[in-house]
Amino acid sequence: MADLGFVGLGVMGGRIARRLLAAGHRVTGYNRTKTKAQWLLDVGMRWAESPRAVAQAANVVFTMVTDTAALHAVAHGADGVLAGLAPGKIYVEMSTVSPAASRDLAGDASGRGAQMMDAPVSGSVSTLEEGRLSIMVGGDRSAFERIKPILLDIGPTVTYVGGNGQAVLMKIATNLSLAVHMLAFSEGVALAEKGGIARETAVAVLLSSVVASPMLKYRGPFVLRPPDEAWFDVTMMQKDLGLALELGRQLSVPLPTTAVTNEWLSAARSMGLGGRDFAAVFEVVTYLAGIQKRGIQDLDSETHAQRTGR
Amino acid sequence: MADLGFVGLGVMGGRIARRLLAAGHRVTGYNRTKTKAQWLLDVGMRWAESPRAVAQAANVVFTMVTDTAALHAVAHGADGVLAGLAPGKIYVEMSTVSPAASRDLAGDASGRGAQMMDAPVSGSVSTLEEGRLSIMVGGDRSAFERIKPILLDIGPTVTYVGGNGQAVLMKIATNLSLAVHMLAFSEGVALAEKGGIARETAVAVLLSSVVASPMLKYRGPFVLRPPDEAWFDVTMMQKDLGLALELGRQLSVPLPTTAVTNEWLSAARSMGLGGRDFAAVFEVVTYLAGIQKRGIQDLDSETHAQRTGR
Amino acid sequence: MADLGFVGLGVMGGRIARRLLAAGHRVTGYNRTKTKAQWLLDVGMRWAESPRAVAQAANVVFTMVTDTAALHAVAHGADGVLAGLAPGKIYVEMSTVSPAASRDLAGDASGRGAQMMDAPVSGSVSTLEEGRLSIMVGGDRSAFERIKPILLDIGPTVTYVGGNGQAVLMKIATNLSLAVHMLAFSEGVALAEKGGIARETAVAVLLSSVVASPMLKYRGPFVLRPPDEAWFDVTMMQKDLGLALELGRQLSVPLPTTAVTNEWLSAARSMGLGGRDFAAVFEVVTYLAGIQKRGIQDLDSETHAQRTGR
Amino acid sequence: MADLGFVGLGVMGGRIARRLLAAGHRVTGYNRTKTKAQWLLDVGMRWAESPRAVAQAANVVFTMVTDTAALHAVAHGADGVLAGLAPGKIYVEMSTVSPAASRDLAGDASGRGAQMMDAPVSGSVSTLEEGRLSIMVGGDRSAFERIKPILLDIGPTVTYVGGNGQAVLMKIATNLSLAVHMLAFSEGVALAEKGGIARETAVAVLLSSVVASPMLKYRGPFVLRPPDEAWFDVTMMQKDLGLALELGRQLSVPLPTTAVTNEWLSAARSMGLGGRDFAAVFEVVTYLAGIQKRGIQDLDSETHAQRTGR
Repeated sequence: MADLGFVGLGVMGGRIARRLLAAGHRVTGYNRTKTKAQWLLDVGMRWAESPRAVAQAANVVFTMVTDTAALHAVAHGADGVLAGLAPGKIYVEMSTVSPAASRDLAGDASGRGAQMMDAPVSGSVSTLEEGRLSIMVGGDRSAFERIKPILLDIGPTVTYVGGNGQAVLMKIATNLSLAVHMLAFSEGVALAEKGGIARETAVAVLLSSVVASPMLKYRGPFVLRPPDEAWFDVTMMQKDLGLALELGRQLSVPLPTTAVTNEWLSAARSMGLGGRDFAAVFEVVTYLAGIQKRGIQDLDSETHAQRTGR
Repeated sequence: MADLGFVGLGVMGGRIARRLLAAGHRVTGYNRTKTKAQWLLDVGMRWAESPRAVAQAANVVFTMVTDTAALHAVAHGADGVLAGLAPGKIYVEMSTVSPAASRDLAGDASGRGAQMMDAPVSGSVSTLEEGRLSIMVGGDRSAFERIKPILLDIGPTVTYVGGNGQAVLMKIATNLSLAVHMLAFSEGVALAEKGGIARETAVAVLLSSVVASPMLKYRGPFVLRPPDEAWFDVTMMQKDLGLALELGRQLSVPLPTTAVTNEWLSAARSMGLGGRDFAAVFEVVTYLAGIQKRGIQDLDSETHAQRTGR
Repeated sequence: MADLGFVGLGVMGGRIARRLLAAGHRVTGYNRTKTKAQWLLDVGMRWAESPRAVAQAANVVFTMVTDTAALHAVAHGADGVLAGLAPGKIYVEMSTVSPAASRDLAGDASGRGAQMMDAPVSGSVSTLEEGRLSIMVGGDRSAFERIKPILLDIGPTVTYVGGNGQAVLMKIATNLSLAVHMLAFSEGVALAEKGGIARETAVAVLLSSVVASPMLKYRGPFVLRPPDEAWFDVTMMQKDLGLALELGRQLSVPLPTTAVTNEWLSAARSMGLGGRDFAAVFEVVTYLAGIQKRGIQDLDSETHAQRTGR
Repeated sequence: MADLGFVGLGVMGGRIARRLLAAGHRVTGYNRTKTKAQWLLDVGMRWAESPRAVAQAANVVFTMVTDTAALHAVAHGADGVLAGLAPGKIYVEMSTVSPAASRDLAGDASGRGAQMMDAPVSGSVSTLEEGRLSIMVGGDRSAFERIKPILLDIGPTVTYVGGNGQAVLMKIATNLSLAVHMLAFSEGVALAEKGGIARETAVAVLLSSVVASPMLKYRGPFVLRPPDEAWFDVTMMQKDLGLALELGRQLSVPLPTTAVTNEWLSAARSMGLGGRDFAAVFEVVTYLAGIQKRGIQDLDSETHAQRTGR
């Protein structure tokens, strides 16, 4: 059992904190909107009034936020995590930001005698809840050994990738496939459907085929019935592809399918689908292919039709 | 137990025939090169001297060949399967050809009082051997019910997709994802590797992530060590993408990731990799990214270097 | 002055025949729909009752039709051009078909003692009428020298490209740029417009820039006001890109921008724009970018909206 | 005649300053490396010791530098252009930076009572020297009218595009076509060449066709003989495409051909061609297509071969 801290108790962060509590750890948490953390307080999480206070209360402090700006907001400043770090503490940063931003932060933590690890996850809410989350870790090797048992309480696959920033690089290199797979899946479904096969049948066949990754198994059915709330929305996904493409440019690695897919995400945002799960790339394909939409999506198409004057 | 016939005993066809024999069926087979079928004769398969003779000896006859030309060769003519069909027989065609070619052949079978079904499979040798092959079936519904028990002896997932030609359409709509996934995977590995992560680590992380489809689980490791022989080579894959893109044009369904990936397959063929497993798209990425190749691949790069005068 | 024949008096063919008449040649013509050729008969063209009769009446016979099927229809059969060829005659084929189809036809002509040349043109109606048409020629070199003076009566740039089929290859290699340029132009206009610049201004600036090819100078303004009739429609353009991509596959030359553009043409066709000038790729961009359409285009968008149930 | 200042006397900037001198203006200049400006001093340009001093000496001051960082360096700080601005002066910024960066700078200039205009150019050294340069201008309308006569001394086409930042937006929207056209041209040449047509012939036909923009007329021949020095190198071009793609993401305008082309520029940089004129995308195509390179390029390919261990 360890004294842990957790800043950023959103859809993923909150559920990870819940697992840490369930594993018997003492967890002190902070979230910008406290009400969203009430369910965790109800099961024993302690509350702190700032990221700094969280870091002060814990030996190992986690952050998991949306993007670089949000990370800056919780890490820096008088009330930030960094201000609460002290020699010997470990800071586990689970957000997906650029490797450079991650390395900068690790340098700041080091300046306070602490060690930062980048530890992004691969998987979604369902992967997490099924206890199958994969965690990549970058940073000091011996610090990794210290936190590994705690990370294994979150998910069964914990992989040491390399020095600071390497785990977020690996995360970015993984996430590009999420978007590309979803678009290729959409192409297949649309081709089958316009060729006369029922959409349900096309989805069923694809999901029993060898291309059915865990991601497609949970996200593929969204083309039949969109989820009530986005698990990972178009705008977030485009942020990740943006990181990938920028790294591709810096490292001069051509990323042909990533680049093409990114433009479809732009099209999805333009159609007003930016806040929808990125399975919405399917809507761009059906929209362009002239395939009739159904059910819940009609709302969006109406909005777009009005906006474009049609 | 049924009287079955099998024409085309290659890598996949031979192994399917083996499963049918193992399930207790009487199987009569034919292959252009008889020696390649010896192992099947050794376990009880009967031999016929022509596709026609196979069809005459069986109630249900299967064909599984490389492309439209090869299918034409075994199906038509005096010694072809069609010539051996008779009222009540069922012809199960497992090759990947265009839906139009498949429908034409079904019409020919119908003209002889028989029924043809298109029944392509999703999966590879390993999927088949693990008893996890997925089979899609197009054609007459009641004929489907008759052959379904036999198909279940091949693999556990047998899905009725629709009328003649619909199963090959579905197969084509599935296969485009194979190639796209492999290219996106290659982009991720190359990005990680050029960013300083060991290739083995990158592959391991990707294969424990949510994008790890069954296909990537067996094919992904090929970027570490190419297989001794191609399971599905670049040229074959490009044939399938060509079918997809042509259908996309006919049905006016845009296929952005498929189109881009197809050009990388052209590049792979240009680099002399046409006969290599299509995991070789990775080589195009590393070639362009200036990542040092290793081991067995050096042979190819030398050849290319010589050919291009470098 | 020469005895010429012309089969296929459509938008381009008719105007080319007109130029040949104006240059003083004796021209015998044939068109499937005779009424469309009346304006040429009025200025002195002679009429023949079949392609064969045209070939019999002429020393040099031209054909210019839509595609391979149409070419087959006028060239083969009892009434076809080939049947009217005789030793010493030259057959100048100006359609855009595959190099292989062109070479086959050249072989047939050779079998009758005549010589066929492929002589596709680069340019549009306006290029032709301004006397600036460019003609590429493939086939026998000495036959080329014989017809060169006649071709110079059509346009000022006549280039010998190589053996039979090489000129259509060159035409295909040229035409891919037409479509790609128009899509890139559309991307630029849409980006400027959504960024707040008036569409008219964006078009004006682009057309005074170094990217303003002759093609863009006449086609670019179509994004402001579509032409009354298509000069070269989406379906025709996609036929040409299809030839390019198929050649790319055969010769293993990757064609990245061509492949991507082809998918946008599919999207345009899906939106009901197949019969519109291929400048309609702009509509796909604005459609996806959520930019309000204007004027004459509204008709199409309504149709699409109805068809897709929106 | 006006009192002008010019900061950034590189390949383009220097030649523009030369034209201003030739038109009779008094020009005070500054360049980081003074020796590169000697030829201008020889024809009457005055020298100032800092950008600030240039701005103090002039009523209208120009800057033309490589990127945002370079612009920051010459505009800000104690010795920067801004420090030398005073009420009534006009600052004409000709670099290609993001619209946001341009607007920020305009705000800074406004804070000193001066007015900034963004005035990027479309065209190259040759366009400029032939007196055919096109200049786009963004900013205050009446300030535009004041500087228009001066800009007409640089090139004949001066277009008012809109408010601050709109001209660089338009420039970015134009430049994406440069790269895309060059890649499409390369695809056409490679397809023709691998199909048996001499490269010189393919280039000649394309450059006499309707796709031959002014840009292709001067840059197309680079695939036959690379220029002694890059006019606009791969890295610079990728900077501009990066600005376009980022704007496309912000404004949600899909840019399919731009995105694909950008990845080929990454490939070119990876092949060691980052400092070469962006016509080098042709090398990526021929490299992938297995077409033998010739002459001066061999040097690069050797370097790449060594680096990749081949």
